[in-house]
Amino acid sequence: MFIQAALRRTTTTSSFSYIKVCSNGSRNFVTTRRLLEESKTKKPTHRVVFSGIQPTGVPHLGNFLGALLNWVKLQKTAHPEDELLFSIVGWHALTLPQDPAALRVSRQDMLAVLLAIGLDPERCTIFHQDENPHHTELAWMLNCLTPVGWLKRMTTWKTRLAASRNANSEDEVDEGLLNTGLFTYPVLQAADILAYKATHVPVGDDQTQHINLARDIADTFNRTFKAKKPLFPLPELVVTPTRRVLSLKDPSVKMSKSSPDLQSRILLTDTEAQIRTKIRGAVTDSIAGITYDPVERRGTANLLTILAACSDEEVGQVASRYADKGHGQLKADVADAVSELLRKPRAEFERLKGETAYLNAVAQSGAAKARERSEVTMVEVRKRVGLL
Amino acid sequence: MFIQAALRRTTTTSSFSYIKVCSNGSRNFVTTRRLLEESKTKKPTHRVVFSGIQPTGVPHLGNFLGALLNWVKLQKTAHPEDELLFSIVGWHALTLPQDPAALRVSRQDMLAVLLAIGLDPERCTIFHQDENPHHTELAWMLNCLTPVGWLKRMTTWKTRLAASRNANSEDEVDEGLLNTGLFTYPVLQAADILAYKATHVPVGDDQTQHINLARDIADTFNRTFKAKKPLFPLPELVVTPTRRVLSLKDPSVKMSKSSPDLQSRILLTDTEAQIRTKIRGAVTDSIAGITYDPVERRGTANLLTILAACSDEEVGQVASRYADKGHGQLKADVADAVSELLRKPRAEFERLKGETAYLNAVAQSGAAKARERSEVTMVEVRKRVGLL
Repeated sequence: MFIQAALRRTTTTSSFSYIKVCSNGSRNFVTTRRLLEESKTKKPTHRVVFSGIQPTGVPHLGNFLGALLNWVKLQKTAHPEDELLFSIVGWHALTLPQDPAALRVSRQDMLAVLLAIGLDPERCTIFHQDENPHHTELAWMLNCLTPVGWLKRMTTWKTRLAASRNANSEDEVDEGLLNTGLFTYPVLQAADILAYKATHVPVGDDQTQHINLARDIADTFNRTFKAKKPLFPLPELVVTPTRRVLSLKDPSVKMSKSSPDLQSRILLTDTEAQIRTKIRGAVTDSIAGITYDPVERRGTANLLTILAACSDEEVGQVASRYADKGHGQLKADVADAVSELLRKPRAEFERLKGETAYLNAVAQSGAAKARERSEVTMVEVRKRVGLL
Repeated sequence: MFIQAALRRTTTTSSFSYIKVCSNGSRNFVTTRRLLEESKTKKPTHRVVFSGIQPTGVPHLGNFLGALLNWVKLQKTAHPEDELLFSIVGWHALTLPQDPAALRVSRQDMLAVLLAIGLDPERCTIFHQDENPHHTELAWMLNCLTPVGWLKRMTTWKTRLAASRNANSEDEVDEGLLNTGLFTYPVLQAADILAYKATHVPVGDDQTQHINLARDIADTFNRTFKAKKPLFPLPELVVTPTRRVLSLKDPSVKMSKSSPDLQSRILLTDTEAQIRTKIRGAVTDSIAGITYDPVERRGTANLLTILAACSDEEVGQVASRYADKGHGQLKADVADAVSELLRKPRAEFERLKGETAYLNAVAQSGAAKARERSEVTMVEVRKRVGLL
């Protein structure tokens, strides 16, 4: 909804209150004015949307509702002239230890997932990051403009390291375990975005600091290598709605693929029976009646969030319908809604999974499109820094 | 001489005492045994030599005697099956601020220099690093295996930062100025080497810690991504003889292109008259007679070093010939020798400089050869890590 609005040129004012876009200057969120102005101009700005997802296992409901579903909505609602690039970012996956055989499978599966949920390779550029060497080439050049101090201030590597070690808190993380890839991946992420001169980056709000870093780096490049026009637009974070899906077993944490409890998450590949079992076993509370209280009634609130996301409604609206009902009814309806939501993508995924030749062809053509696109940027970059 | 011997399979025992090669296991220097053993084996090991030079201005006499001349000797004496790769490492140049226009010229000039001194593009692979994206791709993968702590222990970035800031000592360097490129370039250097599975790296002994790092990274890769055979050979440092040419004006420091005093260095492009003036103005001492004393008589010792390097003799041998002579005679002979040494390369450089079409053709074919060669390695790397 929010991303739709943020990127649609012909927006209605009613949805503006939900729009959150980083402004170029102040980095505060702006709401309506900017987009209204953009809509009024006769020749609209060329918008380039970039986002990425790591190929580390089959996506779960949290990934689906938090990111993937928004990509599909973007595809439906973006202006025909908007460019949409979605990348499976294999190089980022390497920042934490991976089993090579599992990564190989996940990498291909993720492409099948993107197609299964309805992304159209004719409309979007869907590609494997690791098949476009411009990303690492540009990352190198941006490394040379990025003070080490900027990366030290990032907190995400601490979080990721803590998660990968099952540490209870970030303070427990031994910095000696930090590898250079994990430390510098925000620069690669900036390169992912800037290689296409992306203007809009729809990601979770935990990525705010990285998008701000990408803006700082882009700005540094523009100022260091001046010409008539700055080379890079400063990319804007498009904050996705906070459909933060929590663990079904411990609703104090996000649904996560790294949790050892398989019952805590619903996978895109789960059967209807598996979905029902997992939802039925979801932790809630013994308070009578249903209310949306994400602090005191986390488990219940999580089920309401999921239900609202499936029907694309406001969570308060959904909650009011259940005021007089019990958890049994809520769980049954959530299971129905999730099953229905995942039914088609799951079937499509199962069908596409085996179609290796087709998947390879899509990957090849996506990578070729991406490379052709970023080559234009790279020629300009190489000229500006003096390597061409 | 030393590199010659270290890389020649049919060596004579007489030159063995000069050979310094890092052993695989202990990292101590080995002398004769290893090479003798290698010479005895019927099927000799495939040797791959890699070295690089930054395109930051016309090389001076120190670069020429310290590195470039050794490359030419290598070309003459290496076994026909030995692979020789010499790279102009533009990406490394970006780790310190460069004027883009000057870098553009230097980048092309450096290729002209390599050809002018006699490197044969048919025999060697001569190429611009920045035209082979496999270097940054591999660097990324190696980043993910390199603890940040290893890079913190490197001292070279401190030295380079101090030099670029004209700081008096490394302690004066503000680490806040450190960019991520300068901090991580030893990993890119490891990738430069490992992309070709280079076995021998002829560089100055100030690079010892980087070659050891490259070995550690190669070893980590081999252990992390195991298969029947380890993927990377552990590259060996081939220590070049210590033809350490000092500043003509301040013989307490190395001859350097960053010194503000133009009289302190001789450029490859200097005319005979310029060479004579600079040598005549070289700082020596007022002690009668010539002796080689690199501690108490640095300026004099420097001239003897230069003369010995020009005639490929031992410096003691040269010094003994001058025992009864004065500084005037020594300077005249050094000027003669340097003029003679640089005469042909200078003329060739001036001729080649304008031949842009030819230089472009050489660069293009060199880059194509390099990419074809490293693609073989990269396919193996991508398979091992699970991205193929």
